[in-house]
Amino acid sequence: MADYTPPLRDMRFILEDMGYLGEVAVLPGQEEITADVTFAILEEAGKFAAAMLAPLNRSGDREGCRLQNNVVTTPKGWKDAYAAYREAGWTGVAGPQEFGGQNLAKIVATPLQEMWQSANLAFSLLPLLSFGAIDALLRTASTELKHKYLPKMIDGTWSGTMNLTEPQAGSDLGAVRTRAEPQPDGSYRISGQKIFITYGEHDCTENIIHLVLARLPDAPPGVKGISLFVVPKFLVNADGSLGARNDVKCVSIEHKLGIHASPTCVMAYGDEGGAVGHLVGSANRGLEHMFVMMNEARFSVGLQGIAVAERSYQQALAYARERIQGHDAVSGEHDVAIIRHPDVRRMLLLMKSRTQAARMLAYAVAAQFDRALHHADAEARKQSQALVDLLIPVVKAWSTEIGNESVQLGVQIHGGMGFIEETGAAQHLRDARILTIYEGTTGIQALDLLGRKLARDGGESLKLLIGTMLRDAEALAAAPLPEAAALAPALKNAIDTLGKGGHSLLVTGMGNMGAALGVAVPFLHLTGVVCGAWQWGRATTAAAKAIQAGSTDADYYRSQIALAQFYFSHVASSAAGLAQTVAQGGSEVSAFPDQGF
Amino acid sequence: MADYTPPLRDMRFILEDMGYLGEVAVLPGQEEITADVTFAILEEAGKFAAAMLAPLNRSGDREGCRLQNNVVTTPKGWKDAYAAYREAGWTGVAGPQEFGGQNLAKIVATPLQEMWQSANLAFSLLPLLSFGAIDALLRTASTELKHKYLPKMIDGTWSGTMNLTEPQAGSDLGAVRTRAEPQPDGSYRISGQKIFITYGEHDCTENIIHLVLARLPDAPPGVKGISLFVVPKFLVNADGSLGARNDVKCVSIEHKLGIHASPTCVMAYGDEGGAVGHLVGSANRGLEHMFVMMNEARFSVGLQGIAVAERSYQQALAYARERIQGHDAVSGEHDVAIIRHPDVRRMLLLMKSRTQAARMLAYAVAAQFDRALHHADAEARKQSQALVDLLIPVVKAWSTEIGNESVQLGVQIHGGMGFIEETGAAQHLRDARILTIYEGTTGIQALDLLGRKLARDGGESLKLLIGTMLRDAEALAAAPLPEAAALAPALKNAIDTLGKGGHSLLVTGMGNMGAALGVAVPFLHLTGVVCGAWQWGRATTAAAKAIQAGSTDADYYRSQIALAQFYFSHVASSAAGLAQTVAQGGSEVSAFPDQGF
Repeated sequence: MADYTPPLRDMRFILEDMGYLGEVAVLPGQEEITADVTFAILEEAGKFAAAMLAPLNRSGDREGCRLQNNVVTTPKGWKDAYAAYREAGWTGVAGPQEFGGQNLAKIVATPLQEMWQSANLAFSLLPLLSFGAIDALLRTASTELKHKYLPKMIDGTWSGTMNLTEPQAGSDLGAVRTRAEPQPDGSYRISGQKIFITYGEHDCTENIIHLVLARLPDAPPGVKGISLFVVPKFLVNADGSLGARNDVKCVSIEHKLGIHASPTCVMAYGDEGGAVGHLVGSANRGLEHMFVMMNEARFSVGLQGIAVAERSYQQALAYARERIQGHDAVSGEHDVAIIRHPDVRRMLLLMKSRTQAARMLAYAVAAQFDRALHHADAEARKQSQALVDLLIPVVKAWSTEIGNESVQLGVQIHGGMGFIEETGAAQHLRDARILTIYEGTTGIQALDLLGRKLARDGGESLKLLIGTMLRDAEALAAAPLPEAAALAPALKNAIDTLGKGGHSLLVTGMGNMGAALGVAVPFLHLTGVVCGAWQWGRATTAAAKAIQAGSTDADYYRSQIALAQFYFSHVASSAAGLAQTVAQGGSEVSAFPDQGF
Repeated sequence: MADYTPPLRDMRFILEDMGYLGEVAVLPGQEEITADVTFAILEEAGKFAAAMLAPLNRSGDREGCRLQNNVVTTPKGWKDAYAAYREAGWTGVAGPQEFGGQNLAKIVATPLQEMWQSANLAFSLLPLLSFGAIDALLRTASTELKHKYLPKMIDGTWSGTMNLTEPQAGSDLGAVRTRAEPQPDGSYRISGQKIFITYGEHDCTENIIHLVLARLPDAPPGVKGISLFVVPKFLVNADGSLGARNDVKCVSIEHKLGIHASPTCVMAYGDEGGAVGHLVGSANRGLEHMFVMMNEARFSVGLQGIAVAERSYQQALAYARERIQGHDAVSGEHDVAIIRHPDVRRMLLLMKSRTQAARMLAYAVAAQFDRALHHADAEARKQSQALVDLLIPVVKAWSTEIGNESVQLGVQIHGGMGFIEETGAAQHLRDARILTIYEGTTGIQALDLLGRKLARDGGESLKLLIGTMLRDAEALAAAPLPEAAALAPALKNAIDTLGKGGHSLLVTGMGNMGAALGVAVPFLHLTGVVCGAWQWGRATTAAAKAIQAGSTDADYYRSQIALAQFYFSHVASSAAGLAQTVAQGGSEVSAFPDQGF
């Protein structure tokens, strides 16, 4: 039941048939990622995920982490799995070649990351957070700091962490109080407490490189007085060897609903006079330095939603095929597998069609990341970046909401057995619950979509997206199979609904920003649902073409069209209602009287 | 944070202002339940729930139950709380006076039950299951068995259990294999294994009376060969004293996602030759005998959904008022309580407006229960029974879905703290997860609504419901305040959507029952959403009248109208999309190819 099968066929469909890999492979410098090379890498990564990471998912949940004398012990198997992961070179897939990385395009790195996360969400957070730290150092650290830390972080000898949150500073990082005192030698002494530090302490690497937000003594209050520091667990000597233990320690780990095997640490800095740290980037610009990597981090958490949805789908499907119960309501046949029951089938289709929709959207955005970086034409780069910026909150929030809805359905399909921990379905539910919260809650993503994206450019990037969608809808209308082309009116209708929803939100926002913010999340859901329809439209066009071209895998392509049909009737059907909420429901939130709660 | 405040104001609004108590108080034999008497009882029960049961909710979750040598030890405080509950007479509120009960009308017993369940869901299952057993014995047992068991079950000295499920017989009870061998003395020897037996073994009562489904040696296969037996843990002597230990024992308890303090037992019958049992009702009609109490049991679980939604709402609201984070997006004020953030407000309103909608519907159905039993006019009784039968699957499934959505929002409002077990928000999420599963999954409820209710009478009872709704919509259109009457078109529209949805489902079902079953759950959701709109319509009319009459509590009534407005824009807005799914989406489920999963 705990098996994981990498969904390579579905990935190949998106990358190859839907053209996202090809879009990237034509970019300057990306010629090496042919389909053959890409799928060879995916296959290797999938084998590793299934064989090494997936089997530890349940045992890691049961065992959890232990803290004793400021030392965190990860569950059995963790150290070996990490060593194998590192030796296989997976820690360096996305780092630059200058520091030992493989610099893989995002369109290739994305499915790899999805598989590791599906196989073992709690494990995958270790390299994920490391990569966050690598990325921040890459973008803002001095050459000296880069050379000191990056090679060993990219080869996985050391890991990295992100230290942002404090008890009074959660979503509002302006409230950070950790202090940094400048020293005569140019270093700083850091003191303060950080909470919710993922893998803040663990036993899988020789050293842990903490990136820490703190305030200089003369810093202005609020977000403009926060600086970023690098604080290693062990100081690093000039020759790269490890020196003294730094004044930072893990003082407790959280007892969480899920991801038990991922230690969530309370970190104490400076109990013995101050932890030695170095400034990364410019003073007082720490938040900016962190936010340049925000798109990457949010994208990765969006992928986690897809990953856990896929894992719980696989488990629910296996159960639905095995579990014998009741009779077929149509044929009357007795003692059938429950996948024959229409509502079980409906739930599986809801899981599969939404998971694949979110995956297609995420991979589409991954391709835009690559275009924004590598396209020869500046205007094309700018447009791709605008689409990335617009869609990141959707990928983050909508995919993780889908993840949460999927794990709920995964439990439901198991019936009473789903409520029993041994079954394993409940673990996915517990693990997934953090995904709509960390790296910015769904509400924060919606605020970002509305305030920083939609309102700031007056809806220009939304228009760009809608224009892209409409071209794809035209292609769908011209698709070779009639059942494919028949979906085009529904897609156009959904796109139209999104356009109207965006317009009404802008109008509301001009008159009453409070009211607009009250429907920001429904608008984000509307955007997600319509983006899913868009991707299923593209998928249908691609599938129809493959069938017309006489593919030997026609059954697969037909099933994609059937999934698209299901998505339109069962998911995209909610778009008009969401648009109605967006148009009408804002003032009912903002004007609700306090004493009415 | 773990406090519980009985929502007496909201209950009073439903019972008194909306008229549901009055509808019952005019029935023959129900004259005693004046408003004064009723609210005195509610206040007492609320005090008990808040003071005695609510404080044990967290500790019970943490401690859980232990099994050693077939003996289950409940968490600290459980035995005392149960003793106090019994001594206060709460075990007998619904039993008949003949056996020591108080025979309270369902419209009064319902809010009591809700409060106990809100205060401590795991605890409340002990009296709930007992009442199920009492109800089954009342309806079908011989006079001798009734006198032997009921007085001590109703006064709470003994508890009762329901033993239906076996590993191969979950939703399909026709697969039950437990055997019952007739003995010369008229008794039976029961042998077999039952699973998922709530409070199958515990230390709070002197004796436990098990109701057990089993097969006689000559029984036909399937559902028509199952009989119902009563099997006490300790045999009961002729004088009512306890005799020998019966051959039934708890061999393990489940490690569950939630309701840790409620022991879920695997029960072994007949390991030493057979447990002594007696036939209840007629041979081979055990399922029928169980199903006469099904409406009661499903109604109670529906109430659990409302109860846990209320509890998690109260906790989230308290947190949202306390937690300081960020700034007010409109006024710019810094360091505000998060209830000032529009999306937090929206989530609280979603929780509150849906919870109250489900509560209003459940109480409306409770009044129909009472009318079906006590109304002087046979036709009125029949109509009320038809409405009860139609709406029970909606109360069960829709309220528990709302419960699950609410606990999700409850965690979300807590942000990162919601994921930490100490906060307590996650417990509600874990506890609630069983509610859409036990006592018939949401899928089974939808099957019941479609197959046994809608299709069987060709939509007659749905028409009856819609007629009732339309009369209430007319009353709303004539309500005194313009903002109240302004909701009437939206209500009529929602009712119309339900009528069309029901019609299209019937048409689909005539052509292709498999396709109809594929959208049975969306139809159930549609029914729930529209029933909620109906109840908010009635609430708005009642609130408008109270304001016009010059109530001193006008703020409360205005907040009810504001909640109704929110519900229409944010919840009822989904009705048309659901109806579209019902009309179009069935064949996409039934025709989906097996190899496509």
